[in-house]
Amino acid sequence: MDMKIHDWKESIYSDGSEYFVSNPNPALGENVLIKLRVFKWAPVKAVVLRYIKNGGDMHIKMEEIEEKGIFKYYGCEIKVSQPEIHYHFLIGTDSETYYYTQLGLTDYSPAEEYDFRIIADYECPEWVKKSVFYHIFPDRFHNGNPENDVKDNEYFFDGHPTIKKKWNEKPCEYEEGFCLDFFGGDLEGIREKIPYLKELGVNALYINPIFRAATNHKYDCIDYFNVDPHFGGNEALVSLSEELHRNGMKIILDVSINHTGTAHKWFNKDGEFFPKTVGAYNNPDSEEREFYYFDNKNNYHAWFGVKTLPTLNYRSQKLRDIIYRAENSVVRKWLKPPYNIDGWRFDVGFCMARMDEYQMHQEVWREIRKSIKEVNPRAYIVGEHMTDSMEFLRGDMWDACMNYFGFGFPVRWFAGENSHFDQRVKAFGLKASRCTAERLANMFMQNLARLPYQMALVQYNMYDSHDISRLHNHSGISYETRRGVIIMQFTFPGAPAIYYGDEISINGTTQSVEGCRYPMVWDEELHDKNCLEFHKVLCQLKQREKALQSGGFKILYAKGYVISYARFTDTKAYIVVCSQEDKAVNVDIPAVYIGVTDSSKITEVFGRFRNTCVQNGILKVELQPYECLLYEVIF
Amino acid sequence: MDMKIHDWKESIYSDGSEYFVSNPNPALGENVLIKLRVFKWAPVKAVVLRYIKNGGDMHIKMEEIEEKGIFKYYGCEIKVSQPEIHYHFLIGTDSETYYYTQLGLTDYSPAEEYDFRIIADYECPEWVKKSVFYHIFPDRFHNGNPENDVKDNEYFFDGHPTIKKKWNEKPCEYEEGFCLDFFGGDLEGIREKIPYLKELGVNALYINPIFRAATNHKYDCIDYFNVDPHFGGNEALVSLSEELHRNGMKIILDVSINHTGTAHKWFNKDGEFFPKTVGAYNNPDSEEREFYYFDNKNNYHAWFGVKTLPTLNYRSQKLRDIIYRAENSVVRKWLKPPYNIDGWRFDVGFCMARMDEYQMHQEVWREIRKSIKEVNPRAYIVGEHMTDSMEFLRGDMWDACMNYFGFGFPVRWFAGENSHFDQRVKAFGLKASRCTAERLANMFMQNLARLPYQMALVQYNMYDSHDISRLHNHSGISYETRRGVIIMQFTFPGAPAIYYGDEISINGTTQSVEGCRYPMVWDEELHDKNCLEFHKVLCQLKQREKALQSGGFKILYAKGYVISYARFTDTKAYIVVCSQEDKAVNVDIPAVYIGVTDSSKITEVFGRFRNTCVQNGILKVELQPYECLLYEVIF
Repeated sequence: MDMKIHDWKESIYSDGSEYFVSNPNPALGENVLIKLRVFKWAPVKAVVLRYIKNGGDMHIKMEEIEEKGIFKYYGCEIKVSQPEIHYHFLIGTDSETYYYTQLGLTDYSPAEEYDFRIIADYECPEWVKKSVFYHIFPDRFHNGNPENDVKDNEYFFDGHPTIKKKWNEKPCEYEEGFCLDFFGGDLEGIREKIPYLKELGVNALYINPIFRAATNHKYDCIDYFNVDPHFGGNEALVSLSEELHRNGMKIILDVSINHTGTAHKWFNKDGEFFPKTVGAYNNPDSEEREFYYFDNKNNYHAWFGVKTLPTLNYRSQKLRDIIYRAENSVVRKWLKPPYNIDGWRFDVGFCMARMDEYQMHQEVWREIRKSIKEVNPRAYIVGEHMTDSMEFLRGDMWDACMNYFGFGFPVRWFAGENSHFDQRVKAFGLKASRCTAERLANMFMQNLARLPYQMALVQYNMYDSHDISRLHNHSGISYETRRGVIIMQFTFPGAPAIYYGDEISINGTTQSVEGCRYPMVWDEELHDKNCLEFHKVLCQLKQREKALQSGGFKILYAKGYVISYARFTDTKAYIVVCSQEDKAVNVDIPAVYIGVTDSSKITEVFGRFRNTCVQNGILKVELQPYECLLYEVIF
Repeated sequence: MDMKIHDWKESIYSDGSEYFVSNPNPALGENVLIKLRVFKWAPVKAVVLRYIKNGGDMHIKMEEIEEKGIFKYYGCEIKVSQPEIHYHFLIGTDSETYYYTQLGLTDYSPAEEYDFRIIADYECPEWVKKSVFYHIFPDRFHNGNPENDVKDNEYFFDGHPTIKKKWNEKPCEYEEGFCLDFFGGDLEGIREKIPYLKELGVNALYINPIFRAATNHKYDCIDYFNVDPHFGGNEALVSLSEELHRNGMKIILDVSINHTGTAHKWFNKDGEFFPKTVGAYNNPDSEEREFYYFDNKNNYHAWFGVKTLPTLNYRSQKLRDIIYRAENSVVRKWLKPPYNIDGWRFDVGFCMARMDEYQMHQEVWREIRKSIKEVNPRAYIVGEHMTDSMEFLRGDMWDACMNYFGFGFPVRWFAGENSHFDQRVKAFGLKASRCTAERLANMFMQNLARLPYQMALVQYNMYDSHDISRLHNHSGISYETRRGVIIMQFTFPGAPAIYYGDEISINGTTQSVEGCRYPMVWDEELHDKNCLEFHKVLCQLKQREKALQSGGFKILYAKGYVISYARFTDTKAYIVVCSQEDKAVNVDIPAVYIGVTDSSKITEVFGRFRNTCVQNGILKVELQPYECLLYEVIF
């Protein structure tokens, strides 16, 4: 076996995982040992760690500290003396110096934006690394208590009546039902289905808003302090939370603290639920007037112009107290007993506390984080964001974003579909050819390479959600293509999240968000059992394997429509090889760069082990059209 | 002439200059018209501006608004409704969408770090765009008043005596003289040489520290409120400032507010200049104790461990008042009459107000900027920074950095020299091969592409300074090579700065910083007249030509050791073609992408107009070894 045919520079690797940083989430003032590895036979003369301390650039020689497999490891200790340490490596040969950042290698001194980052005192929600989320739109999951169902015409909101739907009906389109059609799903229903969820193998729930609100989506909150009675009220949440925790499962709730509904007591525009004497809209002298943005004609700012969703104004210190600062604030209340939720998903986190000249969002998010972590340091904070969210992912605001930008949109495009996001762009007549593997790799890396690695490991990775059409509902998306997307989802750094029903391929439409909110199907005859079994395997794998929880990440191959990357520890690896080629192809994956040799033990997780072999560290793979293979490697 | 052979995608261009943004430095709330251009015959179906407003991504269709030369222009208006607007462009053809950021084109949705940026209410020091700085180390420029010279053994500091040097002697190395050797240069000397400076053609001075201090470099300040008597005291500064302004010249001063000297009255360690009863070091109860970092053993933090330079502690609000907040604070005093300085260069700006867990620098710099701009909105704020300084260049802290990272180090490396910075890395045995044009282009762009363009236009571009060896003192650096560096300096976005004596190629050594502080040579017989005349041409050009002051920037060519870039308005361009090849080469510069056609009028600024011609928009250039050509083009 001649390994020296390979480019040693490709073997240079480090990351922010426990395999390369002795204490990856250190307290301020602690020392960490940082490691970098490279092929044993690489012509390396010196490795230097370069980091910024109090603004100055420091250089530390790294010593060769060990050999393992085909790698030698260099290491040095630094003290994490300030809130963030960022660093990159200089690797010198007899004639050249290379610079290694999270984006890869340059032969000139790089800007610091892609530096490796360690956040001192980062309260990492470690449990997320081992989690598979299941995302539930609660009106549409399971009706546990028909007693609490909304009735036809039970009430009117914004001039429209409530509509009671039968479970197997289709949801109304927005214009038909104005989000006032209800299927009766509730928290009791979710609790009853815990056995199903355990059988599937998920261990964390993300539940869309449940606080009292008029619509089925409940982003138009009326009362942040009470669970909607149609969902079972606060007691139902206590029961659900307790039973989930008894079963080793976590729960995060969704809340929009960017806006309330117009029917919220604070605002109370039309007096649907509160007397018209109260509230900011009708009473300019009310103490809640400052919670909103009014002009002197009583016009108010509403989220994206949706008049039922008046924007909250975080210039109000009183509002900040009520929403997140006070002991009994919205954000704190539900984290505490008896509710004990494990984190928050913040709706439209990207635009919260931002109003023209008043861009308060960084300050407000830092305060919110502090408030949350005081109650539960391991609480998970996920912000909704559909575009580049790096501003929020510096360790002092969110833990994660809903990873549309860094995962969901890229893989959907690679799968041959243009996402909901791109629909907006299509309005301008813009088109795009298919996403090549190179484009996909670039999109992955432009996001990952700026994230502190410990945060990359807790990103919320989804490709479907209540806000975009389900991938499998799109015509032309084959099951084989979806398999690749799902394998990537379960193997990409971060926590995979199954949007309810995806595991059984439920119906839906792709024309509006209502189309992805079809009620869950409980008739097993109608389940896509292949898909369900496939998800079960991946759920187990994610929860079992360190490589997929906290291991390294490296893209090994990206040509044409075939991408391959690996997740790995120093003893084991998973290698994804995903093709979106419309024909069978043979590809050579240079798995040697993560330590695979001809004597490594290799299996394919789903038993698709045709003519695979390793020669000189090259994994030789034969792929059927649109096929995705997942190899397990023991070094 | 067949222009359609060219890649239309390379013709896509926009920037933050007045040629592409109607009001490039708008007030908050103003509208701006943003433009993008592309070849007339490009297969463009739609151009969309994409920007972030209150966190959300907005898309606006751009209309085709005009044709000029070989370009069509698309435009749209947006309101600058928040402190920073960042945007990029989507350019669609029949089959594909391209995304255009300051870094260039991608075929996938890019991260936002390279977005174009408009800063609302950015108080741009417009005069800097038209300035050529002359940087003076005052003890070494000219002795205007021998009466005020330091005398041999006039005083002792840190156990060492002052040494009076004759003008034509060499400076002491640090270990010989401990920076206490003086040549007698003073402010009166600078004033006397204003005719020389005018003749040279510079119109702004940057003067190293002049406030009272023991050493010749005066970074160890004793008294921020008084000019050192050996430099002529405060009256000399008044005279100098007045005469400079009468002559249409600006002046910025250098100050270290990161640390004082140990001899400062506030600290007063050894009692050299003040009674030992005062000061923080000897009196733990003194009110200045909190200005510094002391531990309970009376150890104090000093800048980079240099014990004569105790670090100031900006946790002290009283210190902030004295240094920059109070009406008569250090920073404000000198900006006001009768001194009227036009800006500040802040020594070691990169590490100011940063001490381990207390990273106060962003807050402090924002406060300093506010304080400065209240006195003079056009004051220029330059921070010393040797590495990536983007954190400070967002419009609310500095206007500029000393551009070692984005200009100085890259061009010195391209010139075949390893800079002072790299010397530090050499300590680890690291080596590097020569800098290719591609490396140079990458280094230019990784910095420029993150800067708001209006700030790029006011960066302080130097390749020599009082802190690094003079390029021309290095063996193997030919005059021809230097010419290229200097042409790039005068044509790169930002203000060029001549380090005193470079224009006449004065002597020096390269082993330590003392070697670049040789006294100025006033014997014209010893002047490098070629070099002086060459500088004069460039000074005039920079002060005359809008293209070089506020025009666009585009790299046209970067292969082997030849780089070419252009600065341009819509009527005129300057094209630099700089070779560091050791042999004559012919290169084809695709000048068509900035609008050059076969009918454009082209001259070479220095008359080197050999076999140049334009064919089909390609500028065909014949370069001698190490030659740099500077073309002027009228479209």
